[in-house]
Amino acid sequence: MIGAVEAGGTKIVCAVGTSPDNLVEERFPTTTPEETIGRIRSFFEAQQKDRGEKLNAIGIGTFGPADIDPASATFGRITTTPKEGWQNADFAGPLRDAFQVPVAFDTDVNAAAVGEGKWGAAKGLSDYIYITIGTGIGGGVVSGGNVVHGRMHPEIGHLLIPHDRAADPFAGSCPYHGDCLEGLASGPAIGKRWNVDGAHLLPDDHEAWTLQAEYLALACVNLTVSLSPQCIILGGGVMEQTQLFPMIEERVTRVLNGYLEAPAIVPPGLGNKAGILGAFALAASS
Amino acid sequence: MIGAVEAGGTKIVCAVGTSPDNLVEERFPTTTPEETIGRIRSFFEAQQKDRGEKLNAIGIGTFGPADIDPASATFGRITTTPKEGWQNADFAGPLRDAFQVPVAFDTDVNAAAVGEGKWGAAKGLSDYIYITIGTGIGGGVVSGGNVVHGRMHPEIGHLLIPHDRAADPFAGSCPYHGDCLEGLASGPAIGKRWNVDGAHLLPDDHEAWTLQAEYLALACVNLTVSLSPQCIILGGGVMEQTQLFPMIEERVTRVLNGYLEAPAIVPPGLGNKAGILGAFALAASS
Repeated sequence: MIGAVEAGGTKIVCAVGTSPDNLVEERFPTTTPEETIGRIRSFFEAQQKDRGEKLNAIGIGTFGPADIDPASATFGRITTTPKEGWQNADFAGPLRDAFQVPVAFDTDVNAAAVGEGKWGAAKGLSDYIYITIGTGIGGGVVSGGNVVHGRMHPEIGHLLIPHDRAADPFAGSCPYHGDCLEGLASGPAIGKRWNVDGAHLLPDDHEAWTLQAEYLALACVNLTVSLSPQCIILGGGVMEQTQLFPMIEERVTRVLNGYLEAPAIVPPGLGNKAGILGAFALAASS
Repeated sequence: MIGAVEAGGTKIVCAVGTSPDNLVEERFPTTTPEETIGRIRSFFEAQQKDRGEKLNAIGIGTFGPADIDPASATFGRITTTPKEGWQNADFAGPLRDAFQVPVAFDTDVNAAAVGEGKWGAAKGLSDYIYITIGTGIGGGVVSGGNVVHGRMHPEIGHLLIPHDRAADPFAGSCPYHGDCLEGLASGPAIGKRWNVDGAHLLPDDHEAWTLQAEYLALACVNLTVSLSPQCIILGGGVMEQTQLFPMIEERVTRVLNGYLEAPAIVPPGLGNKAGILGAFALAASS
């Protein structure tokens, strides 16, 4: 029996089950580390009690930046996040202590990438990228069948892309980098630029989506020349605007201009379950 | 006894030896495929005759794009290069036929990255990038100890970076993408922008180098957020302007702005031998 946690900057999804088909889930908002980890613990404890069975492993896919290096002294902690109260918070530690089981800990997007590779849009692929475009932008990279960690983990949301300020004078909303990808193309960036309370309030044919397709295409081009992926999966709330997919594909092909073939650009095969199934997969393989 | 070939867009380096310490080299310009491969063959044949010994393997690190997938029907060929006469040219095939030995075939920059990891600036590292900035810009990526191939291979020279046309009205020199990294920061791009016959003719304190450091820093930032490398090695003719290294490091740290740590940014440990030693390493491990 496995416990899985998908920890986003705004909400937590917890699940317990023995296979991806029989997960029981609970969702609640992400608040302070103490309260949030306490609620995860309570859910797991209640599930153990109900089933008369103990967890064998826990998998966490978390927002970041986070220390996901098992060899590090601070493994299992959130690091320099702008999210209040979470700087240096120990996430894996309290759950490992409470349940005395192995806790797999990786970023939410790495977990989702693993899930998509196991059961979703990247099934059978060795080189692909999973990107979520929502409150923030993040990505998990799989290269040669392995999740790319590197020194820490990629932070694809902070890619720099050409930004024509004559066409789009919006200065960008990233508190660290201004007009990086996240600053130009996250949900909050779209809302701020067009002065609406949520990107989803803009009509499907609004010029916002032309600009959005352009920025996401430029990011896909940069990832293509850096990693030569077979496929780029675009998920998250903003990509519920499915009209974006053909617009992005057309632009990626146009910008690459025949020098390289464009990768397939597709929605997640697991829909909004990529994160929690990925956390499950992390624990199952730990 | 191993034969190694470093094939650049303008010159070929061939070497024969039994270890990296005893290579005998020959250099000549890259002309047509027939003439160039003919000269490589003649050099290897002469070395075999002189030493009374046969080659056991050949390693080629080549300019690209090239088909480096051993499972592909067109493995060993150059593909869509702008270099005249080389489109779809078979490079590995004629040498395999002539010498009847295994021919390892990868990009020049992947070979150099392997060489730097084995004997150079990235010795012992698992995640690093080797970039050469000269006639063109190319890079080899090592992630988790493995060379990143992906669907084909990365083409880092064609990264897109912010380009402030008010500060730098130069439209870029890349025939495919205009102002991609190579279009803005290769040797020929620098020469064209400042109207000189070679970037090396510009004085060390020319404003060209401030702009160059800026562009290379933006590319290093994009590679850092995509791959989280421990180290980025910058080589090639343009980087003989060693004043660029601290300028680039300072800018990478400034642009990352504390969100991520900057990787080390260093010259190749093998100097201009990274390519040929990398080709040797490719063959030795084949």
